[in-house]
Order: sequence, then C-alpha cells, then structure tokens
Amino acid sequence: MVGRVDGEILTPTAAESHGPADADAITAAARLIGSAKKPVLLLGLLASGKSAAEAIRGLLAKTKLPVVCTYQGAGVVPREHFERFGGRIGLFHTQPADKLLDAADVVVTVGHDPIEYEPSLWNQGKKRNLIHIDAVSADIDKDYRPQLELTGNIAATLRALAAQIDPQTVPADTALLSEVARDRAILAERAALNGVPIHPMRLAHELQALLSDDMTLCLDMGSFHIWLARHLYSFRPRQILMTNGQQTLGVVLPWAIAACLVRPNEKVISISGDGGFLFSAMELETAVRLKCNIVHLVWIDGFYDMVGIQEMAKYGRLSGVEIGPVDVVRFAEAFGAKGLRIETPDQISSTIKKALEMPGPVIVGIPVDYRDNHRLMEIVHPDALD
Amino acid sequence: MVGRVDGEILTPTAAESHGPADADAITAAARLIGSAKKPVLLLGLLASGKSAAEAIRGLLAKTKLPVVCTYQGAGVVPREHFERFGGRIGLFHTQPADKLLDAADVVVTVGHDPIEYEPSLWNQGKKRNLIHIDAVSADIDKDYRPQLELTGNIAATLRALAAQIDPQTVPADTALLSEVARDRAILAERAALNGVPIHPMRLAHELQALLSDDMTLCLDMGSFHIWLARHLYSFRPRQILMTNGQQTLGVVLPWAIAACLVRPNEKVISISGDGGFLFSAMELETAVRLKCNIVHLVWIDGFYDMVGIQEMAKYGRLSGVEIGPVDVVRFAEAFGAKGLRIETPDQISSTIKKALEMPGPVIVGIPVDYRDNHRLMEIVHPDALD
Amino acid sequence: MVGRVDGEILTPTAAESHGPADADAITAAARLIGSAKKPVLLLGLLASGKSAAEAIRGLLAKTKLPVVCTYQGAGVVPREHFERFGGRIGLFHTQPADKLLDAADVVVTVGHDPIEYEPSLWNQGKKRNLIHIDAVSADIDKDYRPQLELTGNIAATLRALAAQIDPQTVPADTALLSEVARDRAILAERAALNGVPIHPMRLAHELQALLSDDMTLCLDMGSFHIWLARHLYSFRPRQILMTNGQQTLGVVLPWAIAACLVRPNEKVISISGDGGFLFSAMELETAVRLKCNIVHLVWIDGFYDMVGIQEMAKYGRLSGVEIGPVDVVRFAEAFGAKGLRIETPDQISSTIKKALEMPGPVIVGIPVDYRDNHRLMEIVHPDALD
Amino acid sequence: MVGRVDGEILTPTAAESHGPADADAITAAARLIGSAKKPVLLLGLLASGKSAAEAIRGLLAKTKLPVVCTYQGAGVVPREHFERFGGRIGLFHTQPADKLLDAADVVVTVGHDPIEYEPSLWNQGKKRNLIHIDAVSADIDKDYRPQLELTGNIAATLRALAAQIDPQTVPADTALLSEVARDRAILAERAALNGVPIHPMRLAHELQALLSDDMTLCLDMGSFHIWLARHLYSFRPRQILMTNGQQTLGVVLPWAIAACLVRPNEKVISISGDGGFLFSAMELETAVRLKCNIVHLVWIDGFYDMVGIQEMAKYGRLSGVEIGPVDVVRFAEAFGAKGLRIETPDQISSTIKKALEMPGPVIVGIPVDYRDNHRLMEIVHPDALD
Repeated sequence: MVGRVDGEILTPTAAESHGPADADAITAAARLIGSAKKPVLLLGLLASGKSAAEAIRGLLAKTKLPVVCTYQGAGVVPREHFERFGGRIGLFHTQPADKLLDAADVVVTVGHDPIEYEPSLWNQGKKRNLIHIDAVSADIDKDYRPQLELTGNIAATLRALAAQIDPQTVPADTALLSEVARDRAILAERAALNGVPIHPMRLAHELQALLSDDMTLCLDMGSFHIWLARHLYSFRPRQILMTNGQQTLGVVLPWAIAACLVRPNEKVISISGDGGFLFSAMELETAVRLKCNIVHLVWIDGFYDMVGIQEMAKYGRLSGVEIGPVDVVRFAEAFGAKGLRIETPDQISSTIKKALEMPGPVIVGIPVDYRDNHRLMEIVHPDALD
Repeated sequence: MVGRVDGEILTPTAAESHGPADADAITAAARLIGSAKKPVLLLGLLASGKSAAEAIRGLLAKTKLPVVCTYQGAGVVPREHFERFGGRIGLFHTQPADKLLDAADVVVTVGHDPIEYEPSLWNQGKKRNLIHIDAVSADIDKDYRPQLELTGNIAATLRALAAQIDPQTVPADTALLSEVARDRAILAERAALNGVPIHPMRLAHELQALLSDDMTLCLDMGSFHIWLARHLYSFRPRQILMTNGQQTLGVVLPWAIAACLVRPNEKVISISGDGGFLFSAMELETAVRLKCNIVHLVWIDGFYDMVGIQEMAKYGRLSGVEIGPVDVVRFAEAFGAKGLRIETPDQISSTIKKALEMPGPVIVGIPVDYRDNHRLMEIVHPDALD
Repeated sequence: MVGRVDGEILTPTAAESHGPADADAITAAARLIGSAKKPVLLLGLLASGKSAAEAIRGLLAKTKLPVVCTYQGAGVVPREHFERFGGRIGLFHTQPADKLLDAADVVVTVGHDPIEYEPSLWNQGKKRNLIHIDAVSADIDKDYRPQLELTGNIAATLRALAAQIDPQTVPADTALLSEVARDRAILAERAALNGVPIHPMRLAHELQALLSDDMTLCLDMGSFHIWLARHLYSFRPRQILMTNGQQTLGVVLPWAIAACLVRPNEKVISISGDGGFLFSAMELETAVRLKCNIVHLVWIDGFYDMVGIQEMAKYGRLSGVEIGPVDVVRFAEAFGAKGLRIETPDQISSTIKKALEMPGPVIVGIPVDYRDNHRLMEIVHPDALD
Repeated sequence: MVGRVDGEILTPTAAESHGPADADAITAAARLIGSAKKPVLLLGLLASGKSAAEAIRGLLAKTKLPVVCTYQGAGVVPREHFERFGGRIGLFHTQPADKLLDAADVVVTVGHDPIEYEPSLWNQGKKRNLIHIDAVSADIDKDYRPQLELTGNIAATLRALAAQIDPQTVPADTALLSEVARDRAILAERAALNGVPIHPMRLAHELQALLSDDMTLCLDMGSFHIWLARHLYSFRPRQILMTNGQQTLGVVLPWAIAACLVRPNEKVISISGDGGFLFSAMELETAVRLKCNIVHLVWIDGFYDMVGIQEMAKYGRLSGVEIGPVDVVRFAEAFGAKGLRIETPDQISSTIKKALEMPGPVIVGIPVDYRDNHRLMEIVHPDALD
C-alpha cells in the first residue's frame, strides 16, 4: 500500500511480497477444473494487472477454458483466444457472456471483486462450485461461497495451477461460443449504419479500427458507455478504463488527465455524454494548464438518457433531463483548447486522427442517435437492431 | 472469512488458502536478519495463531533471536526460551522490552497490527530496517515503512525463513537480556509482599503458580490489568486474553462466557476491577443461565483508579471516581451464583482453587492495595517497589 | 436554553421572553373552535409545564371541550374535569381516546411534538382542521398541516384564547365520553383480581390509591408500562414521567435518581420490568451513594415480554427472551440498599408504604401475571379481560 | 415552516403566528436601553425580513441609536440614517463597526444568528448587557449570555419597544460615528483610482452608482467579496445577498438563477472571482435554458487569492492556486449566452448598463488589480490605500 506523509510520497515496500496460494489448494483446484463439464473463467479487476494477465494468457494458451470478464477485466483475453471469449458482463444480466456463465458448472473467479458485478446478479441460487483466485480472501455471502480459495500472488498461483491442469480434460462449451460468434458477426454488419445523427454501433466500429496498442481509452458513464462496454474490444489489459454503475458521472476528464500523467507516451482518448461532460468540464482548465494530449469525445443528444429511462420506469414521467445545447468547440476555445466536430459517419475516423495529432487537449463534439437505447436493457439479440 | 445469512451459519472455505510469501522476499529477509547486529522479533496478535506460534517456536529453537511481544502475542514464547524473551509491550513506552526494541537494528514484526502498539510509540524517528511478516500487507505510515514485506501464510513463511537463516549469524543482545533477567529476579522477591489489602505483585505471583495449561485467563481493563499484563507470564498462545487501551471497561465477563462456550473443557478465570465489574456485572445472569464455569476475581479498591490518575494529570482534581462498596458475595448470590472473598495473601491460592472446583460461576472479591499504582506510568525499575 | 461552559453552569436568561401568539391568529382560532361540531384538545409534553397546565385548566373550566393527552401530557387534566378526559394515547391506535380523536372535526394540539404520537398514526388522511398551539412553529408534513398556528408563550396564548371562546358554542361528544366512562367502570371492577402472581390491573388499582400529590412516579419501558400508561391516572402535571417507544429500556433508575435530586422533598417511586431493571441496575450504587429515597418496584416474570411478542409477530419464534431468576432483595443488599418482596395482592399497599418510610433506595420485587398482555395490542374492551 | 410531500408543495400555515415578546421583558429592555451610555443595535439575518426591517426603521426614526449589521443584515438601515450606520461586520474583527460595537455598554441584537459573526469574535470577555431580540431563543454560550431575551414576532416586539423608549435618553457615540464618516470620505476619493487592471475600490464605486432599487445583487466568495461586503452600500433589505466564510465558492450563479425565479421583475447582477466562477460555471446552461436575465461579472486575476493568502500564512508557500486563463466571452457563447469584457475603469458603467439591457444571461469579464488585498486582513485605515 502507498500513503502520503506531510507532502512526502511514501513508496510501497519492494515489489512482490505474496507467494502463490497454498499448494494443496492449487492441486485441489486443478482437480476440480479437470473434472468439470462446463468450467468458465471469470476475470475481474485484479486479473488485469501486468503479471496476472500474462499468467492468464498462459493458462488460456494451455487449456481451452472459455472466459468472460467484467468491465474492469477488459483487455486481458488476447486476440488469438478471441473465439473463446464470451464477452463482458456487468450492469444488466442480459449478455451472451451471462448465458455462458449461467451454464457453467465450475466458475473460476480471478481477481474479481463483488462490487464489479454482484454475485446476487450472476450466481443467485446456483448449485455449482466456485474457485476463488485472488490476492485477498473471498468476501463470503449467500451468493458467493467458493468451494476453494486460492489466496496469494495471482500470477504465481495461476502458473502453478496451469502446470497441473491437463488440457485434454477441459471441455469448451462450443455451442454457446458459436452463438457468441454468430452475434458478433451480425453486429459487425450493423457497424455500417450510415444515418445522421450517428448510430452508437457505427461509432463503436470506427473506434475499434482506430484503437491501437499505444492508446488509452477512458469512458465516463451514460448510455454511450453501455454500447462501448459491450461492443468495443480491447486486447491489452487496462487499455480501456471504464467506470461502472451510475454514480460516477463526470469522472472521465479527471481520469484522462491522470492517464496522461501516468502514461506520458500514450495517446489518450476519453469519452463522455453531453450530460456527464458538464459535470466536470471546467477541468479542461487543468488539462490545458498541464498540456495533456487528450482527445475528448462528447456524444451529444441534449438529454440525460439513462436518468430519463429510469425516471420513466419509476415515475412514468420525465423531469429535468434536457440539457443544452452547448457548443463544445467554443467551450474548448474558451479554455485555450482545440475544438472539432463530427457530423457524419464518414468524418469519424479522419477527425479523430486529426485530433490525435494536435498538441494539448482537443474536444470533439459528435451528435448521436440514441433511438436504439431502450434495447440496452433488453436481452440483446442483434437482429433486434434492424 | 465467515459470515451469517438469515440465521444460517456460513462456513468459511476449506482450511488454508494462502501459501508462503514470495520466495525471493523470504531469501532477502533471511539475508537481512543474518547481517543484523541486533535483530529483534516483535510478535503480535496473528503470531499467536496455532500454526504461526508453532513456526515461531521452530524459529526460536533454531536461532538465538531475542523476542518481545504485544499483549496480544502473549504465550507464544515457550518456557524453554524464556531467557530470550524481553517481555510484553504496549500502553506505555517504559518496559525492559521497550529498551530491547529501541536498541534493535532490524525489527521483524510477525502478525503485528499497528493498533496493538502504535509504531509512533516504538519506532518514531528510528533509522533501521523493518521486516513485516503478516497475512496482510503492511499499513504503511511515517513510522512504519518496512524494508521487506513477507505476506501470506505466516507459518509457512516462517518455516521457509527459518530454513534459510544461519543460526551462527544471529547475535543475541545478551547485555539487555541479562538486565531483563535481573529485573525478573528482583520482582520475584516482591511477590512475597504480605500486607493487607493485598499487593498486586503478590496476586500476580500467586496467579502464576495457579496458572496451569488447561486454563484460560481473561483480563478486563484497569490498573490491575497493567500489573498482570507485565508481570504474569504464560507459555501457551491465547491462554491470557487481554484488552488494550482504556476503551473496553466491562468487556471481560462477556469474554469469559465466550471462552466457556468455545473451550468447554477448560477452567476459565476472569479478572476485573470493581469499577469495570459493574459495567457488565448483570451479565452474570447469562453466565448462570448458561452454567458457565467461570471464576471471576474482582479486585476491589472502591475507586476508578486509572480514570483518577488521568483526571489528576489533565485537570488537577478528581471527579466521579469513587464507587461502592458493593458486596460481590451477595451480588453473586442474587443471581444464583457462588460468592467468595479473599482478605489475606495466604487465602489467595486456596480460595481460588476452591472456586475452581465449584460448578457454575463464582465471584471472588479481593481488596487490593493500589498505593504503588503511580509507578505503572514510570520507567519501571523494580527496586522502586520497596 | 441552558448550556455548560468549562464546568460553570450557564443560567438561562430571565424567566419568560415569549409573549402570546399573534392576536389575529388567536381570534381566528377562537372562531374556528366556536364553529366546530366535535372539537378535541390534544395535550402534549409542553402542555404539562406549570403555567401552560394552569392555563389549560382555566380553558377547561370555562368550556366543555373534551380532552385527550399523550403520555407526556399526563396529569394536566384535573380531577374535576375527569369526565371530559378521554384518556391517554400513544404507541398503538386502539384506545378510547383514539376514538374521540378520530371523530373530531377540529383538533387543537397544545405543546404536542410529533415524536410523542406521530400524526401519521392519528391524523392520516383526515379532512379536518388542526390548530397548532406551541412554543415553536409546527413541523409540517403530509399528515400534520395545521390551519392555524398560534406560536409563542403557550399559557398566555391559551388565556387569550379562553377569553374569546363562547362556552355556549362548544359541544362535547357526550356519546363517546359516556363510552369512556363505562369502560372505566368495568375496568375498576377488574382491579379486584386476586390471583397470584398479581395481575397488572390489580397493581394499577393499588398504585392509584397510593399515589399522593407529594409523589413522583417514573416508569421504564415494558409491558407493565403500557398497563400503567393507560390505566393509572394522575391529576398533577409531570407527576408521572413516562418514556415512550421501546428504545429506552433501563432509563428509569437514572430518571428516579434525577427526580430525587430535583425534587428533594418528594417521595419517588420508580417501576421497571425485570428485563429493563438489569439494563441499568448497577446504578443502584449511585442511588445508594447519593442517599436517594427511591422505592423501585421490579415487576417480575422472567421474560422480555414485549420483545417476545414482537419476535413472534415477525419471526414466529422466540429467541433470547428468558431472564433470571434474579433475587432483587439480595441484589439490593449487595449494594447496601434495602430489599422487599410482594407475593400477594393484599401485600401491595402495606409493603410499598413500608418501603416509602425507609431511608435510602428500596428495591421491591413483585411477581406478576402477564397472561393478558396480548390484549395490549388489541382494541381494548374491558370485558375482554374476563 | 415549509415542507414537500410527494411532489406536492406543502404551503405554510397562514401568515403570522407569533405575537410580540413578553410585555414585561419589553419594558425591561426599554429601561435598559434608556439607561445605557453607549447602546448599539446589531442587525442580523432576520432583521432584514420585510416587517422586521420596517419596524427597525421606525425605531431608528424615533431614537438616535447607532447601528451596525452583519453581511446578512445589509440594506436594513435606510439612506436617511446613514450617518448613524457604523457599517458591516463579519469575517475579520477590524472594521470601524467593530470599534463601535467594542465600545458599546448595551448591545441589542436583532435577528442575529451566531453563525453570521460568532460572539467569540465580537463579545469575548466583555462585561456588558446584551438584549436578544429574535424569533427564537438565544443560543447561549460563554460569549453570548443575554441579560434579556425578547422572543416572538420581531416586528411586533420592536414596535412595542420603540413605543416605550424615550428618544431623549438614547445617546449616540458621535466621536466614533464621526470617525466612520471621515473614513467613508477618504474611501470615496479612492474610488477615482484609474489604473489598469481595475482597482476593486473603483469597481465598488461604479457599482454603487449603478445599484438601483429594482436590482438584486448576489455575491460569491473570494477577495472581491470582502471589498464589496465592506464598501458597497445598500438601502434596501435583502438587495445584496452575500455568503460568508470561505466554504461556499461557486454558490452565486445558482443563487442568481434563484433570484431571477423569485423576483422575475428585477435585474439581477451576480459577481464571482474567476476561481469561484469555474466551480459552478456550467450552470450557465441552466440560466440560458430558463432565460434568466442575469448579468454575471467575473473579476479576473488568474489566482485563488484568498486560498493563496491562507497557504502563505500556514505553510509559507503557494500550491495549486493558479487558474486559467479562461476566455469568459467565448465561454458564454458556448452556452448560447452573451459575453462582454471590461478592460478600463471608464468602460465599467457603460458595459454593465449595456449588459443589463440584453436579454438572457450575460457574462462580463473584468481583469482586476488585487495588489491591495493584503490590507483586507489588516485594520483598515483608508489612508493605507495610497
């Protein structure tokens, strides 16, 4: 742990102090996985640490284990194992990855904190074995009572575990994974949506193409976040930083500033809705003063969309959800930053590329078409997007 | 961890999930201890767990490391290594064990939580190396910044560490330990104090003789606690349960009830002052109802002694510190328990033995002579007790 | 208001600083009461202050207003207007006084704080006028929105109000008051219950006969409290001190000590159940030390009766509600106080009289028969007690 | 009091429910004032209510009582009694009004809450009589123990008090008031300061000339606030709304929006520093959406001035106090509002007048010269400003 004393920065103790989990527990876990019919790996926040992610990749290389992750575990599964990746879960229990997890008879959680995706949402009433691999002991409750806990250095534990698993014995749920693959194919077609304002899936598609390995992407909260949390892939751990739940509107500009300070050689893209943008937009003053190379995209629809959806669900009427219009180009200029605007799908790529080449923060306004947002709460089946 | 769900008891996951600390960290620790001139072991609460205590005993058997402990680490150092045990520390920085700790150039803390004895009290401004061995990472602050952290299963870590330490290289601070031994010898003489009311050191002496391995002893707070915390030895981990600080007056009768439930085959002695006794004395109803075999000693002087000392120090006058008299024999009888009384030193042993043979709770009232209490705050030098 | 500074007692500013409420508001209130068909006075805590109570008595002498009160307004209605007194309300909405209040078209609250008896319990959904007479403005909510507020010195306001009310115009609800009278007559007969253990109504009856004007009576919480809060009358404000709700178990011995200090020339009787007694029984040490002339009655049934009733209602089973037995006579003697015991109905009066003549605190144990307690939650109709 | 229930607005009970304070207390107060040598009125927040302010003006018209006020009592003293007005107090105990208050032998507080200006700052250790006139009882502490409390309707109480005071008997402290007058004259000259950036006293002077009776002025916190709180006069109660202390940075734009909603026929000017502006500047979106006619002046110096002063005082160095530059004209335009800029003293009046004529919110940026700010903490003597 790191603390601060009187302005002086307390450095943590030297690198790694935990060893692997108890050897007997590791052996028992290998046996349990070996005898499972439908085992699934569930990756959480601590699975995305550097050494842990490498160890997971080793395990995936050796076995055919299907894998899902929370928003915080994004990027751990590498490109070469993409066909085994069921996708991301969190927020609503409606995703293909949820189906995969529901069907599992053994779930191996790795570095997963209950707050990322509450066990009451994904494990309630399930009779099956859980294996908890983490740096800390499990937070046991009615819906999360692991058969085995492997506590200690996650990477070392996973390496020891991988060494004991016989790859032959691990079956993959090919039926469900094929369904995931079919969904992805259909969604890929939706990426050609050409309307104005721009459809979120088109934006996801264009961002996917732009997202290179020397980039960090930070996401605020809002309906745009759910589109991207589900449909924008990453193959590098901690490349996409996502918040979860609805409590953190406005977090992303400060996050992006921090990312610039911590990863000075990377390009940083941050994204918010227009509502979330105004929550912390004055921090652009800080970004300009610190000369942060942030490209911040504002998805504009003049509406607190997620708030409105919940108001309608709870009260049957809307209240206080309209915003703006705010001219983000002028806003940027008021702070000495650059401002750009994307109006049509074909401008997305070129404008963001241009913005990435400009020094200092750039704000890019993008009107979006949120008419399909209601489907974010439904069981997603891509044909529904027609 | 254990939790409770809807009246159903959640059992923890199978036994041990942590492995030993990182192997390189253990090697580095062995090297650091090996090169130290005056290393000292500081044992805390988690050092008194069954397997951890065994591993510590193994380490002590192999090396000549001097050792001190907090009140919560009581009983870990076995009889055969008593000459290497500097004593217990906590509350005031005045003990022989504090001298030993002050002089150390490497301090190895084992299962020590800062709340047991704050590092600001024993390590402030010290330039020396700390090695932190614990189940959890160190809580770093200005006064506690370990050079090395060995996090994981404490017992396994200590076994691995012991295997790497060359016993030849560990020097003991014989001068300071001799001083400790001399102090103990002088204090042993004080145990013959024959006055009435009874002197706390005489009580400590008699209790020492009575304390057998099939006994649990629980201590409330008050000046009696400080006498016993320092001068009553135990060679069995978690045999003496002590609270710390002044915040827990009255805790001991509930503790003793719990000890009876958890260790049904042991004799349980609990001790409080007369002030602390009244804080929770009505729980005798519970002890009687549950037929707990507790012998509870009430040290009586009609005064909140530690409160009075602090009032004088802060305000220069006493307020609200007189209590009683309360006849604890009748009090016991009112609840259907037995009551006994010790008036003279020679009655101590026989009366307590008699009480231990009676079924159900027994309250034993003992008038004590606290005229030497002021010395508890001073640098203890036993000659001062004449 | 009174505060404390550094041990020095801050005395409040000279006696009375509030004048009467606004003159126009008083006139409007007189008019509203004059035109009501079924007005009722509801007296609360501040109605029991000395000058307020006198002014209320003046108002009752002039008009025929029916009146009810909360537990905190006990004793304000004098003997000569007893036939107009509907009784006390609070805790459950089942009393004759509740019927009277329910039927009212204008309710005049005097010094009533919502916490004494929440408006949601007695005024929810009622379309009628409220007049709020108090030292402070009304705490308006959905169920308490007075038509008129008369804020200021309560006594002066009531005097001005009484002067403007035409006694001819105030009708009394004779039908409901006759029902109250009939209930009282039937209950008076129940006071002859002669069983052993003693019935609560018999105790209420005997206490009523003993309660003289130079006495203060303090009640703890428990089922005994509900029996007495409803059926033991007082005609002197602040003679009976009652707590409300279930949150204050054990409050009464400290209260009785305070009553002794504040009213040194009165006899003080305090009453608790055996469960509540143990919550603060060790404060007997204080009562003895301060030589308080308290007679404390402990109603004994070896059970947390109100807790048990609620456990059965919520969980369908009992848990942790048995207590004792505790011999309160020996308990008293342990502290140097006197202890007495009442076993049969005919001993009640003589024993309490004897206790009142003894100096210092006296504890009196009384086994009671709580088999009728279930009726405390029902709409009380006295025939049900057969 | 007003509350809210389920979206429905709870209206308060009819107008006035308090009558005047107790008649005897009023008579005693009149006598105490009559016999005082140096009485002073101290007006607080509740003195600025409509009827209370009228009654105060009546009292001032009848007597020659000198008067001071807190920031919240601004505007109560009318133009015709300006020579008796010692000025405003609060924040630092350095003002001419503080001298007047210090010298008083009787202080009559009217509607003054201790939080506006703590009695420990203006009455500590003083041996003199206080008369507390308020709607609520005094909050007594070591430094505020009124001899008399007059609680009730403030206006009615003051009218009754005025009727009993013999104007002949009330002496005015002409020496100290002459000093106040001399100070004002000197400060008036400072208003001609012509430098660029603009001096705060010049801005105060120009604003004074512009401040007409159909205007509401709202002030944020910052050093600009202290300049205006002391030197910008108002002769209409609740015309200038000021926050106090440093805890409310950014409050003023929301306040100004509220003022527009509550006083739709007034012109609203609000003022903040550039630091405080950014704290809530995105609320301009709300102001534009609601079409609020606010002229918001931003005093610009690129610095958290008051924070910096305190950092230097406590830590001897500055940290994190530089801001911007932010172009407030473009900022305004980004939100669809108007933006203007004042560069030289001669543009102040014409630009603000122009802004007041524009519909919707207008942001006006004004670079200021804060080199004299250090004097805000010193005993102000206007010659010091040369």
